[in-house]
Amino acid sequence: MTRVRADLMISLDGIAATDDATPESPFGEDWARLTEHYVATKSFRERVFGDTSGEGTTGLDDEWHQRYFEGVGAEIMGAGKFGLHAYPDDPDWRGWWGDTPPFRYPVFVLTHRELPPIEMQGGTTFHFINASPTDALAIAADAAGSADVRIGGGPTSLRPYLAAGLVDELHVAITPIVLGRGIRLWDDLRHLERDYQVSSVTAPSGVIHVTFTRG
Amino acid sequence: MTRVRADLMISLDGIAATDDATPESPFGEDWARLTEHYVATKSFRERVFGDTSGEGTTGLDDEWHQRYFEGVGAEIMGAGKFGLHAYPDDPDWRGWWGDTPPFRYPVFVLTHRELPPIEMQGGTTFHFINASPTDALAIAADAAGSADVRIGGGPTSLRPYLAAGLVDELHVAITPIVLGRGIRLWDDLRHLERDYQVSSVTAPSGVIHVTFTRG
Repeated sequence: MTRVRADLMISLDGIAATDDATPESPFGEDWARLTEHYVATKSFRERVFGDTSGEGTTGLDDEWHQRYFEGVGAEIMGAGKFGLHAYPDDPDWRGWWGDTPPFRYPVFVLTHRELPPIEMQGGTTFHFINASPTDALAIAADAAGSADVRIGGGPTSLRPYLAAGLVDELHVAITPIVLGRGIRLWDDLRHLERDYQVSSVTAPSGVIHVTFTRG
Repeated sequence: MTRVRADLMISLDGIAATDDATPESPFGEDWARLTEHYVATKSFRERVFGDTSGEGTTGLDDEWHQRYFEGVGAEIMGAGKFGLHAYPDDPDWRGWWGDTPPFRYPVFVLTHRELPPIEMQGGTTFHFINASPTDALAIAADAAGSADVRIGGGPTSLRPYLAAGLVDELHVAITPIVLGRGIRLWDDLRHLERDYQVSSVTAPSGVIHVTFTRG
């Protein structure tokens, strides 16, 4: 049966989307600090950078990154995560991930804009849909077949799914830094934990991995 | 040399002071959930409830609670934590902690009101001072002698000390619940971690203990 999963990286103060990007630094310094441990893992380097040198960290952060794509058959992401807000006027924008994105499955980008699908190398196709969270989930679940659906974020796109009880497993990697600006994950999610088993474990990198699993 | 220490219990969304107290439930349900693991420890029960039965949890949460008072010679707390906001018109208000508060040292309550000191049983005296954070710290450090000063909270009182770099060790116990309302600790503390070594460990209770120690 299709499960709905989400993984986010957040700071101690719950910031999941940073806001200090500039033309010179399109992700921003805060994003770099938030994701440093993931980008350093062996499996991230392989899957996202295509680095086959075998370099990168192993251990808990790496194990989590391996699970990130494992068993996922389709993904839903917000327009901001895809980059439509950063590059609204670029007709050739094809996401942040180069010619061969790491997804290798259909990705449904939530947007009010009508855009044709973009078929990338390696099995990823970006579809642009104007749909409610529930309708988007039905579309993605259909595409995923028996595999899982990931709600890829950012936090603004993920929060309605969490609030509606539609997420079966939430994994949050907390980087022990205080950002103080950006978009927070936890807003308006009072009592989220009540429908889940929650467990936490700390990686040698200092990152705290918290999982909410439906009981 | 006097060190300045602080310990707070917060939720995953950083709430350190809850706001659902009622006349019937003077601490509120949220506070009970936030502090459940501490109240359950053997050392809390001994020190705060005077329970000498030996009952209560041991292990990491208990170790942290033992350190809570260890080596502290004076404490600074906000008027809200003492209870002056909840009971502003009660001339006999003497705090939440009964006749024999667990502090056993001078406690300096920050308030604009002029109130005489209250000497309690067991070594605790509440002094009421109208002072800036820095001036209050000088007063408390003088009272503590060579022992440590605790900034007892709540978050609104603690934050200026953290922002000014006056805290040597911050211990935060994160209870894995989402409260969604109350006063957040982390606001306006961007880059707090830069002056500290940060480490994290998870207790069997599910509580995540994060410590900021000045390098």
